[in-house]
Amino acid sequence: MNAKQITDLSQLCIHTITTKPWDIEEAAKNFSAAGIKGITVWRDALEGRNIKQTGRMLRDYGLNIVSLCRGGFFASKDAAKRKAAIKDNKHAIEEAVKLGTSLIVLVCGADPSQSLEDSRNQIGEGIETILPHAAAAKIKLAIEPLHPVYADTRSAINTLAQANDLAEAFNSPYVGVAVDVYHLWWDASLQKEIERCGENNHLFSFHICDWNVPTTDLLLDRGLMGDGCIPINKIRSWVEATGFSGFYEVEIFSTKYWSEDQSLFLEKIIKAYKEVI
Amino acid sequence: MNAKQITDLSQLCIHTITTKPWDIEEAAKNFSAAGIKGITVWRDALEGRNIKQTGRMLRDYGLNIVSLCRGGFFASKDAAKRKAAIKDNKHAIEEAVKLGTSLIVLVCGADPSQSLEDSRNQIGEGIETILPHAAAAKIKLAIEPLHPVYADTRSAINTLAQANDLAEAFNSPYVGVAVDVYHLWWDASLQKEIERCGENNHLFSFHICDWNVPTTDLLLDRGLMGDGCIPINKIRSWVEATGFSGFYEVEIFSTKYWSEDQSLFLEKIIKAYKEVI
Repeated sequence: MNAKQITDLSQLCIHTITTKPWDIEEAAKNFSAAGIKGITVWRDALEGRNIKQTGRMLRDYGLNIVSLCRGGFFASKDAAKRKAAIKDNKHAIEEAVKLGTSLIVLVCGADPSQSLEDSRNQIGEGIETILPHAAAAKIKLAIEPLHPVYADTRSAINTLAQANDLAEAFNSPYVGVAVDVYHLWWDASLQKEIERCGENNHLFSFHICDWNVPTTDLLLDRGLMGDGCIPINKIRSWVEATGFSGFYEVEIFSTKYWSEDQSLFLEKIIKAYKEVI
Repeated sequence: MNAKQITDLSQLCIHTITTKPWDIEEAAKNFSAAGIKGITVWRDALEGRNIKQTGRMLRDYGLNIVSLCRGGFFASKDAAKRKAAIKDNKHAIEEAVKLGTSLIVLVCGADPSQSLEDSRNQIGEGIETILPHAAAAKIKLAIEPLHPVYADTRSAINTLAQANDLAEAFNSPYVGVAVDVYHLWWDASLQKEIERCGENNHLFSFHICDWNVPTTDLLLDRGLMGDGCIPINKIRSWVEATGFSGFYEVEIFSTKYWSEDQSLFLEKIIKAYKEVI
């Protein structure tokens, strides 16, 4: 082990999408009862709800609302769609304020009908446009680099180096980076780029899960920590070496785990959190 | 268009795996009849054949034998498997000599039960071990970086930067790099790394196909040039800017195209070669 074993749940955060079959009320109740202290809220979990009341409900359960997932998707060849994305991101900032979180995670987007360079430029423009709104609302934005397998339609930002470059270019306390082991574990420059991210105070989020071998579905076959081949403990040691003391966020999309009893799945998550990462 | 349009087939090479339903004799006959000048031979296509005679057959059809695919798979936690890989690579060198090609493409391997660093070290050791045999036989070795989606079991070398680093470390005329657009198109540093590869005289092979949107199978759903989102023409312009004058090798694994009439598929390849790349 590189990083020391975790003995309590004070830094554990779970994304609502991880236990998707539960609605947010059920998730909050069960996370809280298990002693979990953090929740990241996916926007679909807020549908049809009063967001302020939902935020209060989460805090009443003793949960820190670590972030809102997700803004972004700035890249499109279609100017009307880019404009709609800006509007949606401003809306997400309002939702974050109502919910009572200080961070939005950005999945930046990509459009396969244009070049990656164009998509990257539009991402930069998009963040530039929403940044004043975010800063005014005191909401931070975390650029999440996505695995290169998603470079076609989900993100033209595919390495931590790119995300660091982009965050550095903004040089704002409101723009940083989300490090997700699923997207970045393969990268030979990962340790160096995590150090750089930390030195810039840009390491806003740390997401964990595992890479199944084999992976049967590119989107919905993420593994629970320990199921796959990601050296999570080693990567955590690099993250902690930067001084990071935030939450370790479990973000798993898995048709397999979603089909199981979510209470048993939650027990597995806690066990893996303590024993694997 | 960045690179100028191709008007003849003098630089077109097709991998035997691309038209997998054809055996090598049928492929050679049909490639030759269509005016194609290059073939890359996958080792499975040689099974049960006299390799020298097969090489002669290919040359009699006017085909340049561009490379033998593939050696490598050096990484394993199991020392016996690493030893077996060395033996297999030496065997591949003998096959290349018999066939009458001067190049072997290396898919370097990865073992998810050990760290990527360990796999990378074993890849370096493996190439170091076989290099004297390759040099004595005048067979070049092309390190092929594979898309990060294959970092679990197929290759711990996932960027052109890594392949360039490795090739530079050997500093041998017999160790270079294979650039495959499928594996590298997403990389923001691709142009720079192609330039570096060219300056080192390490650009041994250039493989083309396309990235389907969406990709339905990670191994067997490669697209024909023009089907997907890879900027092949732009990448070709970077490759040509290095002075590369070798073959453009069409390497497509596709259950969809394999299920079609291969003569019609060959026509589509030639059309795409002239119109898209």
